[in-house]
Amino acid sequence: MWIFLNDRFVRKEDALISVFDHGFLYGDGVYETLRAYGRRIFRLRQHLARLRRSASLIGLDVPMVEEDLIPVLQEAMKRNDLSDAYLRITISRGEGSIGLDPRLCPHPTVVVMSQPLQPYPIELFNAGVSLAIVNTRRNLAAALPPMIKSLNFLNNILAKQEASRAGAFDGLMLNAEGHITECTTSNIFFVKNRCVHTPSAACGILDGITREIVLSLAREQEFPTEEGRYLPDALLEADECFLTNTTMEIMPVRDIDKRPIGNEKPGPVTGRLRELFRANLPRFLE
Amino acid sequence: MWIFLNDRFVRKEDALISVFDHGFLYGDGVYETLRAYGRRIFRLRQHLARLRRSASLIGLDVPMVEEDLIPVLQEAMKRNDLSDAYLRITISRGEGSIGLDPRLCPHPTVVVMSQPLQPYPIELFNAGVSLAIVNTRRNLAAALPPMIKSLNFLNNILAKQEASRAGAFDGLMLNAEGHITECTTSNIFFVKNRCVHTPSAACGILDGITREIVLSLAREQEFPTEEGRYLPDALLEADECFLTNTTMEIMPVRDIDKRPIGNEKPGPVTGRLRELFRANLPRFLE
Repeated sequence: MWIFLNDRFVRKEDALISVFDHGFLYGDGVYETLRAYGRRIFRLRQHLARLRRSASLIGLDVPMVEEDLIPVLQEAMKRNDLSDAYLRITISRGEGSIGLDPRLCPHPTVVVMSQPLQPYPIELFNAGVSLAIVNTRRNLAAALPPMIKSLNFLNNILAKQEASRAGAFDGLMLNAEGHITECTTSNIFFVKNRCVHTPSAACGILDGITREIVLSLAREQEFPTEEGRYLPDALLEADECFLTNTTMEIMPVRDIDKRPIGNEKPGPVTGRLRELFRANLPRFLE
Repeated sequence: MWIFLNDRFVRKEDALISVFDHGFLYGDGVYETLRAYGRRIFRLRQHLARLRRSASLIGLDVPMVEEDLIPVLQEAMKRNDLSDAYLRITISRGEGSIGLDPRLCPHPTVVVMSQPLQPYPIELFNAGVSLAIVNTRRNLAAALPPMIKSLNFLNNILAKQEASRAGAFDGLMLNAEGHITECTTSNIFFVKNRCVHTPSAACGILDGITREIVLSLAREQEFPTEEGRYLPDALLEADECFLTNTTMEIMPVRDIDKRPIGNEKPGPVTGRLRELFRANLPRFLE
């Protein structure tokens, strides 16, 4: 497996960084995960723009412009002989003396990883997944803005561990006010009387790229949509519920805290949105 | 400079970890910083117990027992010819495939760094430091418990950047309710009518080791103490204010948001606590 590290491709065993990298010492860095369908990358420019936004919000200069990063992503897939691929770009503050000041680190570290996409089993898409509402609350937006996709992932890891202990596929986090936010790596939607609901950005969520597409597709099909603040009860009374992210696209939810959601899986609106997503996929590939 | 990495001492340039270390990818790990006075480590056992507590709270096995870690700390100081030293123990989840599940990483990474203690300039202790109350709020305790000293430090880095922009020594963070919590790497105290106040653990702070000692020394000297929930106004009306951590011990605060605190620097109670700390120091060394 080839990894791009700073300025060249190296073998995985040579993809090494200093223990003084502030990405390691402090989680001081940002990332994006991308998905390629037959080497064509889903919403490539939007992912790169979001990477730049994340970096900018922590005062980190991305040392490569988009026109340099795109050939690296293509080369990574070629060298690793990938077609449907998972890619991850990580940019950390780089190596520097101990201390919080970013000026200690003159050279950011750039890593591009790629591997075969490991699709979720088809049974999950057919039967839906189980969620647990976890005690770990979502990071406070005023403490760590959710639009920074950062290397600080312990909040999500704690939530994921709780979900695993509960035997659930993933954990659904509430915010400080008790409103639903998102799962550890996906956005959540629910359908009630054909209206497609999802927590608003103000709830402290990442404004996911697939989330945005699903909202657009729903509106194009004249499903009403609503972004709002919802208590868990709204979910439990929903007709349908599903998750979205780049890797899973649209994944039906079967039950939450062992209470079943709606009747059929996937529900009719979820199924329709999946069809639409798949039919429109070519226009999202770059 | 020699660094201990997993099972042996290596030169700094050879202290390398995989880009797949979950400490780098996700900030999935914990740390402690320690201080040695003439190679005797301040509150060594308490720091090691806290390291174990942090690790336990994220479900991470510390792969070395205390009886193995202590000789490594001593050897690190000897190899690097240090007397007054700063030490940092970092334990990350280790190398593993991409994904949040800790079970992907069978072997935690252990790093011990040591360097000469860089004391703060004496002028700061004499004149006091300036703080800025920053907009970045302290992490929500229910999202990322503050008693986990984790590699997720971006909250503090954002606060530190705000403080730097304001020309302040450090940033004071409020919690979601607007109560004062702590600075980016220190606890805060204030004195009003000889009573020594500090935010309670319930405010979402790290229960610092020097903080605890200062509270004990104050009580021994029959200064009343109070741990509570305080709004910023309480600080601005205080007679004295100071910071504590292992490296700075007790540092007077001169002003907050450019508003001076009290009259003399250091104030009489702060000065007395510093004398007591220094006089009692030998009993804290191990």
